[in-house]
Amino acid sequence: MTGASFGKIFRLTTFGESHGKAIGGVIDGVPSGVDIDLEYIQRELARRRPGQSFIVTQRKESDEVEILSGLIEGKTTGMPIGFVIRNKDQKGKDYDHLKDVFRPSHADNTYQSKFGIRDHRGGGRSSARETASWVVAGAIAQQILAQQNIKISAYVDQVGHIRYQGEEYHAKERVDQNIVRCPDEILAEEMIKLIKEIRADGDTIGGAIRAVIENVPAGLGEPVFEKLHAVLGHAMFSINAVKAVEFGSGYSAVGMRGSEHNDIITKGGKTTTNNAGGIQGGISNGMPIKLRVAFKPVATLMKNQQTINSNDEEVEIQGKGRHDPCVVPRAVPIVEALCAMVILDHLLIQRTRTI
Amino acid sequence: MTGASFGKIFRLTTFGESHGKAIGGVIDGVPSGVDIDLEYIQRELARRRPGQSFIVTQRKESDEVEILSGLIEGKTTGMPIGFVIRNKDQKGKDYDHLKDVFRPSHADNTYQSKFGIRDHRGGGRSSARETASWVVAGAIAQQILAQQNIKISAYVDQVGHIRYQGEEYHAKERVDQNIVRCPDEILAEEMIKLIKEIRADGDTIGGAIRAVIENVPAGLGEPVFEKLHAVLGHAMFSINAVKAVEFGSGYSAVGMRGSEHNDIITKGGKTTTNNAGGIQGGISNGMPIKLRVAFKPVATLMKNQQTINSNDEEVEIQGKGRHDPCVVPRAVPIVEALCAMVILDHLLIQRTRTI
Amino acid sequence: MTGASFGKIFRLTTFGESHGKAIGGVIDGVPSGVDIDLEYIQRELARRRPGQSFIVTQRKESDEVEILSGLIEGKTTGMPIGFVIRNKDQKGKDYDHLKDVFRPSHADNTYQSKFGIRDHRGGGRSSARETASWVVAGAIAQQILAQQNIKISAYVDQVGHIRYQGEEYHAKERVDQNIVRCPDEILAEEMIKLIKEIRADGDTIGGAIRAVIENVPAGLGEPVFEKLHAVLGHAMFSINAVKAVEFGSGYSAVGMRGSEHNDIITKGGKTTTNNAGGIQGGISNGMPIKLRVAFKPVATLMKNQQTINSNDEEVEIQGKGRHDPCVVPRAVPIVEALCAMVILDHLLIQRTRTI
Amino acid sequence: MTGASFGKIFRLTTFGESHGKAIGGVIDGVPSGVDIDLEYIQRELARRRPGQSFIVTQRKESDEVEILSGLIEGKTTGMPIGFVIRNKDQKGKDYDHLKDVFRPSHADNTYQSKFGIRDHRGGGRSSARETASWVVAGAIAQQILAQQNIKISAYVDQVGHIRYQGEEYHAKERVDQNIVRCPDEILAEEMIKLIKEIRADGDTIGGAIRAVIENVPAGLGEPVFEKLHAVLGHAMFSINAVKAVEFGSGYSAVGMRGSEHNDIITKGGKTTTNNAGGIQGGISNGMPIKLRVAFKPVATLMKNQQTINSNDEEVEIQGKGRHDPCVVPRAVPIVEALCAMVILDHLLIQRTRTI
Repeated sequence: MTGASFGKIFRLTTFGESHGKAIGGVIDGVPSGVDIDLEYIQRELARRRPGQSFIVTQRKESDEVEILSGLIEGKTTGMPIGFVIRNKDQKGKDYDHLKDVFRPSHADNTYQSKFGIRDHRGGGRSSARETASWVVAGAIAQQILAQQNIKISAYVDQVGHIRYQGEEYHAKERVDQNIVRCPDEILAEEMIKLIKEIRADGDTIGGAIRAVIENVPAGLGEPVFEKLHAVLGHAMFSINAVKAVEFGSGYSAVGMRGSEHNDIITKGGKTTTNNAGGIQGGISNGMPIKLRVAFKPVATLMKNQQTINSNDEEVEIQGKGRHDPCVVPRAVPIVEALCAMVILDHLLIQRTRTI
Repeated sequence: MTGASFGKIFRLTTFGESHGKAIGGVIDGVPSGVDIDLEYIQRELARRRPGQSFIVTQRKESDEVEILSGLIEGKTTGMPIGFVIRNKDQKGKDYDHLKDVFRPSHADNTYQSKFGIRDHRGGGRSSARETASWVVAGAIAQQILAQQNIKISAYVDQVGHIRYQGEEYHAKERVDQNIVRCPDEILAEEMIKLIKEIRADGDTIGGAIRAVIENVPAGLGEPVFEKLHAVLGHAMFSINAVKAVEFGSGYSAVGMRGSEHNDIITKGGKTTTNNAGGIQGGISNGMPIKLRVAFKPVATLMKNQQTINSNDEEVEIQGKGRHDPCVVPRAVPIVEALCAMVILDHLLIQRTRTI
Repeated sequence: MTGASFGKIFRLTTFGESHGKAIGGVIDGVPSGVDIDLEYIQRELARRRPGQSFIVTQRKESDEVEILSGLIEGKTTGMPIGFVIRNKDQKGKDYDHLKDVFRPSHADNTYQSKFGIRDHRGGGRSSARETASWVVAGAIAQQILAQQNIKISAYVDQVGHIRYQGEEYHAKERVDQNIVRCPDEILAEEMIKLIKEIRADGDTIGGAIRAVIENVPAGLGEPVFEKLHAVLGHAMFSINAVKAVEFGSGYSAVGMRGSEHNDIITKGGKTTTNNAGGIQGGISNGMPIKLRVAFKPVATLMKNQQTINSNDEEVEIQGKGRHDPCVVPRAVPIVEALCAMVILDHLLIQRTRTI
Repeated sequence: MTGASFGKIFRLTTFGESHGKAIGGVIDGVPSGVDIDLEYIQRELARRRPGQSFIVTQRKESDEVEILSGLIEGKTTGMPIGFVIRNKDQKGKDYDHLKDVFRPSHADNTYQSKFGIRDHRGGGRSSARETASWVVAGAIAQQILAQQNIKISAYVDQVGHIRYQGEEYHAKERVDQNIVRCPDEILAEEMIKLIKEIRADGDTIGGAIRAVIENVPAGLGEPVFEKLHAVLGHAMFSINAVKAVEFGSGYSAVGMRGSEHNDIITKGGKTTTNNAGGIQGGISNGMPIKLRVAFKPVATLMKNQQTINSNDEEVEIQGKGRHDPCVVPRAVPIVEALCAMVILDHLLIQRTRTI
């Protein structure tokens, strides 16, 4: 209702602020009897972690997750999985200068308007730190899906104007071969170079991520208001800084004719093209699911900016702190986590649609 | 859970198939004591209705709504509003040739995979006919919002490659001045001409719609998983044929720098630019909310197409029936309806966030 | 959220007031491919219908349900089932004398406090007329459950001080052998006699209903907050006039010792006694589920009563109209309907708990 | 969906097993800007804590709650409140003899049937240890309600056959004057004596709790499926060992006539009697809300019992461990916690019903 939960059956509920004691959550609706590898979860957290390379924020968070319930001898019991990630880098004091100031294009003023009070330290709950909890839930979902042979891959598709045009699936190992997480090594070099320049400038840059989900059985998604891409879209727009989402042909469909856009179905139910992005009428058709997510440049700059304070006075805020010049390399595991949560949830819902 | 409902407090639940007896729904969570003008609802339905102009489908549906409950002497009682729209043009027989055939890029094969059975007549529940019920709920929401001075406008922004670049608010009367619903009269002429050509070809064409919501108070939307744009995105992706959704700067943000993209806040809390599209950190900031929705070309063609039947045999389907060459003119009131439902729902939720 | 819906997956949403145009609803989450007998639904409605015998209200309602969607050739398609029951006996004028008066122990004053407006005609939505829609959903659920061999029986257990002490299952045909729906013919005669006396007095009398659900598989119900008896209890307290609900040993458990109350488990998993009422720790154990529901006497009397009007003036209301002297005979199919809805819902949820 | 959450807006989601690392939860929908006294929470936990007196279990749990989020400088921020209570007394080994045995009238066999796996240590998640998390949420709700002058009191009404017949409100201090929490000192002595005898016998005994909620404004609760007493009933049946719940006149209503049972409304809207228990038509009427909850005797005995093991072999389990001879003294703060959660939730929902 008020935003802490996502999913219908496999359902994550989170808590925590960027510079509070801890973040964490509860995952309800976990199917019982599944082996869970805790190392897998920790590895996915490491892919999202600050400080993992020189092109991301140098903030220090070890992001160790402690699982508190829901497993016995490494197997899920069907009980909710509760977990916490302690905030190690709790330098709340570093944010005293932002206590009464509204940073441009952050959630400072909107949270203040909404609640009449806010935790100003590092953005409080509006911080992308929150997404570490999603990665925990997603890493559990990915393991359950892997046992059904469903595979999810996300990678960096664009940084600034440098764009990789491929739409194919790439294994995580392949994606992680370079620190920007773009499967094309030459473009990756260019992207890394651009991010370094942008950072040297005290500035930030936008980017985009593509996700491909393979081996999803036909039939997932619900008619009308729980269409599979609507739920995936909801998930993607929940990620900080996302400004646009597209499926399959996406924006290019606007300029196309039906005779060009339609995916011809051939024997066995496959389609010759995949403009649908694996989803027809909101329901998966068995082809790879394809989406693309666009991120704005990070709002925190190492430059001074004009704004107002809580007394409605114009003030200048100074650029300082430790932030990402470009958010997409660290957002890759977040996109994958959300995809996994949505697909698993709908795999479970589909169990209830016939008797 | 299984797709029939949308909204948390102001909540629409729908039923009905394209060629069944009726479509309709139940709206729960309607605030009590509000005057509702039934003519307003009927006018919005007329804007969505087939046969309203020569560039849309010539199917005949009068789309008269009968309100069955929830009002007394023209005022809402807080009780659910139940309503039905009878299907007048129930020529189920016209669809006999499609009974065992899966039309390309429709939901035929996916519904069959999911449920093992389907209502093949005119797409059954996967038909856009369903959206008439959304227009009813949206027309009620729009009236409640109008009393709070919140105004919603949608219009056609693009047909094929013809694009109107404006982002401003336009009153419904202005938008409806031409049959394609583009505020620029010259571009509108071009769009109409293009649609006529496309139709003469037996083909269809994509398009895009922009929506602007004015006077939304700061503070709507919920942190993390019910961000205002995530819920609006969910709503937009629920509309048939939508392939992409963007807010504010949208896809253009990918190529921008933070120093260019950030919206500077000035005295009074307004921003000099509105790249945010009226939403920061998932919460409305008081500026106009701006979104853009991209539609693929309609999948039903007046051309023959290759496909398979339910026996997995390759067959050719013939192009016949009465369908839209371009969906966007009729989708304008649908986009407005969903925007209204989401904003009203969050206006009500916001009442509960302080005590 | 605001009361129109019940159930998680198999979910009923209702609308309608006692003297409006119609009542009805939408059932979402219906499993696809199940044969539904419409006569069965109509028969269950007849068991709830006013005027069915001389000991119930003589109000005239034919209660014909029109199914509007969700079936094709008698089979469920998995799409929502929309339905309406037109109100034939719409004598709204008969209620003009109650427009500004709050009847004792009705919902008149509480609805007025809550909504600031109300439909005074026959209690509006607070009327038990609403339960006809539940019987429709329940009759569909019962048919699906019957195919799983799950059988539900409710019957009158008590009228005033006359109590039948049995707890066994009785088929509907057996229960319907007499008009009061008590399986003991001699007690039934006494109950009928008592109701006639009470009615002659212009008064009403309380009663109780027992329900037994057989062949429920072990494992239904969810830990902690969706315990099977908690959901059944929620359902039962939704019925008008219910003041108490008990499961298995119920109130008698208060005076018992653990050594006396514990149900010993024997080979095969059955228990020697069934104080649990078929539910341990909120989860069904495979034994018959047993509950008992207590109803207060109907609040509408054929006697004059003191009360206040909307101007807070003391007034006397006259006893007139057509009402039930005792509600339990007509409530039997309502109890069964709710039991069926809950069990089917949890049967479907249970499908998602392992993978 | 699968049981971890309770409430619509003010919503608790819990995790944790009796002998796992920790229990805890997330409270979403907390209104912002409210002062919270952490000592109050700890005091309520102490009232539920094992080992608090010689008539309850002597298990050792300090039950210290750590709040992890959602507060800043002692005030709620509107963000979810995450919390953990570490399990200190984690003697999992003590339960090895129960690993493959199904204790009579516990959830052992039903959890095994449902999930195919279970955490056997101390009942796992089916243990009443879980309720400590409810007390945390309830203690926060009680503080918010107290600021609205709404007061909740629960007390022991019956132990075995010893029954206190009063229905009035008693302050917590008064209720806590004796260890059995019955407001009548003489009956309290008798109850304590009985519990001691029962314990000496290695046996357990049932009991009942009454709750009174004062100063609830008229208008809380939602029509039809979210009636205030249905939601309270759902909450009460969620407590371990509850077998029956009644409101106002409760079971005694069965034997009453309408003329006797109706509560006459007098000037100002009060009623002369309160058979309604403060709720008419599912909506609060401004009178005190009254309910009574019946508990079966605790299933764990200090006596040997016959049962079966997971190989379906008949075995005898020995009575050992540390358990409550009677659950009601410790259940008093649990009943209060749930009442507070429900009333606060509906107070918030009611904010959305007019505009």
